[in-house]
Amino acid sequence: MELQPIGHVESPLTDRASAPRQGDEGAPEAWLVFAPEYARGMRELAPGQDVLVLTWLDRADRSVLAVHPRRPETGVFATRSPDRPNPIGVHRVTILAVEGLKVRVARLEALDGTPVVDVKPVLGAER
Amino acid sequence: MELQPIGHVESPLTDRASAPRQGDEGAPEAWLVFAPEYARGMRELAPGQDVLVLTWLDRADRSVLAVHPRRPETGVFATRSPDRPNPIGVHRVTILAVEGLKVRVARLEALDGTPVVDVKPVLGAER
Repeated sequence: MELQPIGHVESPLTDRASAPRQGDEGAPEAWLVFAPEYARGMRELAPGQDVLVLTWLDRADRSVLAVHPRRPETGVFATRSPDRPNPIGVHRVTILAVEGLKVRVARLEALDGTPVVDVKPVLGAER
Repeated sequence: MELQPIGHVESPLTDRASAPRQGDEGAPEAWLVFAPEYARGMRELAPGQDVLVLTWLDRADRSVLAVHPRRPETGVFATRSPDRPNPIGVHRVTILAVEGLKVRVARLEALDGTPVVDVKPVLGAER
């Protein structure tokens, strides 16, 4: 169960303190930069598509199981906190442009340099 | 970037040939069975909540980058195929019951024994 990065995020967001907590809370546009060996996997990605971007939140604390100081204590699986045992970010974004190995997306709250591990189209049930 | 299973799926689905391709295509109810060391992370999960379940699709072919025989060839990142470099399943389900370390969910297309790696609440933008 070892993930391999397929690319990384290029974003003006550089630290957790300044990042919005969710994409719809003022997150900026960003680039997804694919590694050359995954270029074939990008075919048919196009502007206007809604996709789920999965990231590896590499600055997360994986030891956290509950969020405090909430009362009652809330387990991390009932929150979207990046601090969790498997810190996989799920970001719903719209593709704005595709330029070679780079995909421009709207409203991505992931930090600059964050590894990208998957991109999937949004399904009807997720709209 | 090593994932640790937080639990596994208990489902009547036992092989890919008989599994629906998506949860809204006739998938059955299933249990998410958490490992005891993650029990604290489950607090505040409750019936009626919509959650994203992230699984590790352990029977996937990680070498696949494009889907054939589609023409034009479609990259895996423009599909929901389980065969992809990082085979993380994203399943939107509704919680039906919570019983100790087990969470009953509706319409999960993951196979019996599939490792669960994360559970997150659905956000407004994902509805």
